Amino acid sequence: MTADRDLIALDWGTSSLRAALIAPDGTIEDRLSSPDGIMFANGRSFDSIFETLISPWLARRPPPRVLASGMIGSRQGWVEAPYAACPAGFADLARAMAWTTTARGVRVGFAPGVRAEHAHGTADVMRGEEVEIFGAIASADVSDAVFVLPGTHSKWARVVGGRIVGFHTFMTGELYGVLRRHSILGRLMPEEGEEEALDADAFAQGCAAAQRSGAPLHELFAVRTHGLFDRLAAAALPSYMSGLLIGEEAREALALMGAPCGPARLVGRGDLAERYALALGLFGIETVSAGEDLAFRGLHALAGELTRMEDER
Amino acid sequence: MTADRDLIALDWGTSSLRAALIAPDGTIEDRLSSPDGIMFANGRSFDSIFETLISPWLARRPPPRVLASGMIGSRQGWVEAPYAACPAGFADLARAMAWTTTARGVRVGFAPGVRAEHAHGTADVMRGEEVEIFGAIASADVSDAVFVLPGTHSKWARVVGGRIVGFHTFMTGELYGVLRRHSILGRLMPEEGEEEALDADAFAQGCAAAQRSGAPLHELFAVRTHGLFDRLAAAALPSYMSGLLIGEEAREALALMGAPCGPARLVGRGDLAERYALALGLFGIETVSAGEDLAFRGLHALAGELTRMEDER
Repeated sequence: MTADRDLIALDWGTSSLRAALIAPDGTIEDRLSSPDGIMFANGRSFDSIFETLISPWLARRPPPRVLASGMIGSRQGWVEAPYAACPAGFADLARAMAWTTTARGVRVGFAPGVRAEHAHGTADVMRGEEVEIFGAIASADVSDAVFVLPGTHSKWARVVGGRIVGFHTFMTGELYGVLRRHSILGRLMPEEGEEEALDADAFAQGCAAAQRSGAPLHELFAVRTHGLFDRLAAAALPSYMSGLLIGEEAREALALMGAPCGPARLVGRGDLAERYALALGLFGIETVSAGEDLAFRGLHALAGELTRMEDER
Repeated sequence: MTADRDLIALDWGTSSLRAALIAPDGTIEDRLSSPDGIMFANGRSFDSIFETLISPWLARRPPPRVLASGMIGSRQGWVEAPYAACPAGFADLARAMAWTTTARGVRVGFAPGVRAEHAHGTADVMRGEEVEIFGAIASADVSDAVFVLPGTHSKWARVVGGRIVGFHTFMTGELYGVLRRHSILGRLMPEEGEEEALDADAFAQGCAAAQRSGAPLHELFAVRTHGLFDRLAAAALPSYMSGLLIGEEAREALALMGAPCGPARLVGRGDLAERYALALGLFGIETVSAGEDLAFRGLHALAGELTRMEDER
């Protein structure tokens, strides 16, 4: 059997890099977080960022395994990893890893993304979320569930028998951002702060409008008329618009995928997770947290899978 | 009876001012067009812009009546005209006019906008479009129809017995703009030109996706995957996204208002009208042009209504 090794897990996305040193039993022994996302490399090579931040952990013996997930494995990243096709299980991910060797001779593995093909020739992709989903599967010992991953491009994924059988992406977060910053709707709202305070009543009102209407291009204009006729205070308009969009996402997802049998497992935390729990509650969907440190959990489970594969050879 | 007077009709919107000198029988005797929309006054008063552009026409005897429609009658304009409530007919508009007198003593009338109240406390407004609709009613002698007014904030209005009984707004044009210019979807497309050339196949493909899916937040992400997997050329992506959004507007409008009994009357011309005719055709809705110079036609008919009201006093 392959000797137990530590794992260096890299959750390396567009806007940040988070890394953990993980013992064979899954204990996180050290961690770091930096703003060196792939969009902020500013001419430095990923190799050099890796050396600067990670090299203290490389001194361990036996040398740790290094695995990465997220946009670092995209065309704009360090090495382009492929997309594994749905249904995609743990072993499919492990087999489709991409590899590179750094200038100082360290092997780094990149988790593949996952691709879903829909009817009529449209497709969906995720990159990074799949490792979080497998982290949740591994840590909660659940093999059948619907996972909801809120964000710029939110994902709803169905897992059956431990495999991602299908998923859908929704442009919710990005749409909120461009409408807030660049549209006439944003002009009626207060200046945008670091994080927008949630007005739960206005948010619920927006969700309810999305749920009963099914006509988002129309309902969005009510953000303007609510402001114009003082039916909502300017400070409540961002929450109303957020409710409209997250409510519309939930309406679409439930129409496309059907209601989940058990609670929906929510990946993420803080204000955004709170909003999704509120919205899904209004649709009668119970939510539970999918857990913490899911990218690290997923990469650790993937390391175990790679060890098994190596032992079988 | 009040003596017949010429009319100076001002179609004064956000980005341009169009004006016409119209004889009592409706003949357009002169016209001008300028970029002096209310957003581009740059510190000049509306009074002074009016004097500069319109004064040659003011020498006529008897002095022409002056009527204006569009955003010039909004809070950001010259004089704020109210919104007439639906159902709103011609006489309702004439009664709710707002008036001002210029520094040189010229009376100028501003057509009111129209407001529609929906169930659950949401509302819709139009300002300018109502005059175009009445222009179409007057020039085509039609009293029952559905009017479609494509634009930044598209409107679908139902006219029964010569009155606007209800309408809905859709954020289609603005959404296209912010996604084209500020979202990740725009980054896969070629640089934006003056006017985007229409790829009719890609546009129809987008419409069809909107029609069958009913899930626009999800379908928009396919603009990205179609680009990512080379399923559409970069040059075809703007047309696909345009088809998705205009198709979604048609789907929502037909769900909210039901299908029109006759052909839909399309206000506007050129590329955008062509796209709407294409999209509505895919939904089985016949379209006809609502006519030309509709704002001028509507203001001319409104002048006639004001003359009748004055005679009755």
